[in-house]
Amino acid sequence: MLGVATRSWVPVPEGSDFPLQNLPFGVFSRPGAEPRCGVAIGDFVLDLAPVFGDPAFGEPSLNRFLAAGRDRWDEVRRALTSFLSDPSHAIDVEPHLIPRSAVTLHLPLEVADYVDFYASEHHATNVGRMFRPGGEPLTPNWKHLPIGYHGRAGTVVVSDTDIVRPCGQRRSAEGPPTFGPTQRLDIEAEVGFVVGVGTAMGTRVPVEDFPEHVFGVVLLNDWSARDVQQWEAQPLGPFLGKSFATSISPWVVPLAALEHALVDAPAPDPEPLPYLRTPGPSGLDIALEIEIDGTVVSRPSFADMYWTAPQQLAHLTVNGASLRTGDLFASGTVSGPEREQRGCLLELSWNGTEPIRLADGSSRTFLADGDTVTIRGTAPGADGVRIGFGELRGTVLPASPAGRGTPAR
Amino acid sequence: MLGVATRSWVPVPEGSDFPLQNLPFGVFSRPGAEPRCGVAIGDFVLDLAPVFGDPAFGEPSLNRFLAAGRDRWDEVRRALTSFLSDPSHAIDVEPHLIPRSAVTLHLPLEVADYVDFYASEHHATNVGRMFRPGGEPLTPNWKHLPIGYHGRAGTVVVSDTDIVRPCGQRRSAEGPPTFGPTQRLDIEAEVGFVVGVGTAMGTRVPVEDFPEHVFGVVLLNDWSARDVQQWEAQPLGPFLGKSFATSISPWVVPLAALEHALVDAPAPDPEPLPYLRTPGPSGLDIALEIEIDGTVVSRPSFADMYWTAPQQLAHLTVNGASLRTGDLFASGTVSGPEREQRGCLLELSWNGTEPIRLADGSSRTFLADGDTVTIRGTAPGADGVRIGFGELRGTVLPASPAGRGTPAR
Repeated sequence: MLGVATRSWVPVPEGSDFPLQNLPFGVFSRPGAEPRCGVAIGDFVLDLAPVFGDPAFGEPSLNRFLAAGRDRWDEVRRALTSFLSDPSHAIDVEPHLIPRSAVTLHLPLEVADYVDFYASEHHATNVGRMFRPGGEPLTPNWKHLPIGYHGRAGTVVVSDTDIVRPCGQRRSAEGPPTFGPTQRLDIEAEVGFVVGVGTAMGTRVPVEDFPEHVFGVVLLNDWSARDVQQWEAQPLGPFLGKSFATSISPWVVPLAALEHALVDAPAPDPEPLPYLRTPGPSGLDIALEIEIDGTVVSRPSFADMYWTAPQQLAHLTVNGASLRTGDLFASGTVSGPEREQRGCLLELSWNGTEPIRLADGSSRTFLADGDTVTIRGTAPGADGVRIGFGELRGTVLPASPAGRGTPAR
Repeated sequence: MLGVATRSWVPVPEGSDFPLQNLPFGVFSRPGAEPRCGVAIGDFVLDLAPVFGDPAFGEPSLNRFLAAGRDRWDEVRRALTSFLSDPSHAIDVEPHLIPRSAVTLHLPLEVADYVDFYASEHHATNVGRMFRPGGEPLTPNWKHLPIGYHGRAGTVVVSDTDIVRPCGQRRSAEGPPTFGPTQRLDIEAEVGFVVGVGTAMGTRVPVEDFPEHVFGVVLLNDWSARDVQQWEAQPLGPFLGKSFATSISPWVVPLAALEHALVDAPAPDPEPLPYLRTPGPSGLDIALEIEIDGTVVSRPSFADMYWTAPQQLAHLTVNGASLRTGDLFASGTVSGPEREQRGCLLELSWNGTEPIRLADGSSRTFLADGDTVTIRGTAPGADGVRIGFGELRGTVLPASPAGRGTPAR
């Protein structure tokens, strides 16, 4: 065979997020059937279990496949590329293609530990300017290590899960704190990284071993209740202001699909400690887009991030903390230098003082009940194609004062 | 039958942690066999799977039993009390008793999310005095809500797991931070609570529902690298200074065994918001003891804690965050008002300025390589007996500069 196929025999509409060069993994179900693993191609999902005869793909999460490691990930990707490009395979493969409109997408992985970083210099600087006016916007440690914290793994949910406005304590101007629905519900547009291969306690993952451990990439929305967060976060960091929900996109884009998106991160100043130095490009050129109720409000670029994912993984493990299959770590809010590149409403509305306008004429400082937030991402792929992440969506539902949830008790 | 049996036909040595009134659950294995669930009685472990014929007890963690809920927990406890007190059961039960010295104990649960609180007023005040001298020792939010943060679930380990001294970044007096083994390795003596029954997102757990969700209690050592923690923790809280290891005791003492240990927490001032008010006693009278290399260095009382576990669970879920079977939340360092009741070396040595003496004549500010730390706990049980938690032990191993862990690569 001469050259490598660049097109699938499966019809891929112009502008699709899922050309042959992408092949992201997810978990889907058909009505009445159990969730199992699939790959997106054009407007279809390929049912992997019957195609590969691998019981890992019959499971309701990608974890077993993720644990199999880089060699298996590469082997499956090579096979999929062949199956979906060489028309001679169509007769065997075609029966296992299901229209995406006919399936429900599920959380693609069982999340082990979830860590959230704070890696955008523009975001951290903006936040510092708002909350520590007059002082240095960045804390003294910020350029020496990727600041991060652990979030709640059990409330990571898949795109299209509705987000109930959380209640909590908020500082009042005078007197004791009050309790009620957050008045400052926000988003944070982020990029998340999915760990496949774990490590034993006491093991470090050097920056260059990143592709041996990380399988792929998702979009992530770190929903935040700013008033709750601001009242609670000293001295031990964010807690209930974040723990109510974190949404991720349903498709995990393999690192292998993003090789053409590798870019140098902004030049570090000062040079970080040796364990945080990367031998080559470790940033990713992912263009993000944040839409609220049909109006695009921001277009941050992930290429602007000061700290990259390989640096974050090296830092996360430099104290010997072990990794597990299903660990998820995210970048923190992706913000660029310009106003229209800010990745959260806190920055876009400058702490609620500068409302933004939507196309319907309404304005927002923070999210209103009923708002639907959509985050999209695209990156350059092989053969000049565009790699997409699918949409990450969530709609805000009013607070439930009784808090007894669904089903009601 | 008149009255309730107070003694087991299994010999229970005087002063044992595990009388008939305790019956804590754990996971054990015999050489060459897979881990499974057991209950401690005197110097024996009762192998539960053959006794109950319940496959949940054949699993390598308590999670399936934990998920079964309060009615099942009570039913099993009643049955065990009968099996182990009525000598007519001895012929059936005795073959399933294994000397504890013949088994290995394992992590008793698969930890879902791990949250650590900061609930001792004495501890928080001491820390505030050390790190914010001249200011108010407590942050303004401290008496309004139980401050907490998420820790790393994947590095929760069982007692007797060795702790390798972690490496990390530390602030230097002048110039950039340095990297190396922590010079301020510390312990935090805490009490942990194990969630059995989860909740759906959007559900709150009111304080009075605590016993429907929490199965039992463990001792916990939140190992801390104080220099790493101090450099990294602004603005998002502790991360690598804590994430390298958290040890728990191998036996989960059921709440049902601790009913006689219920006490009122110190009177709150100010009165907290309604969702944090408890209808009755919600503190626990657990006497802790911290020993380093054979010298008892502190005896904190858990009854001194300002915030109690039912309040912590109500707070953790008041924003609608869901619970999962296996969630673990801990109290934070247990410190009392007196110097000899402080629960960590940071306080005992007053930030390294006042070394403590051990029986061998050596002194410590923070932990030395080779130190073995043992934490014990006892509480009043039914019939005037003493309920113990078993020992929570860990030994500090020297840092591994290569950081390639075990097995070596």
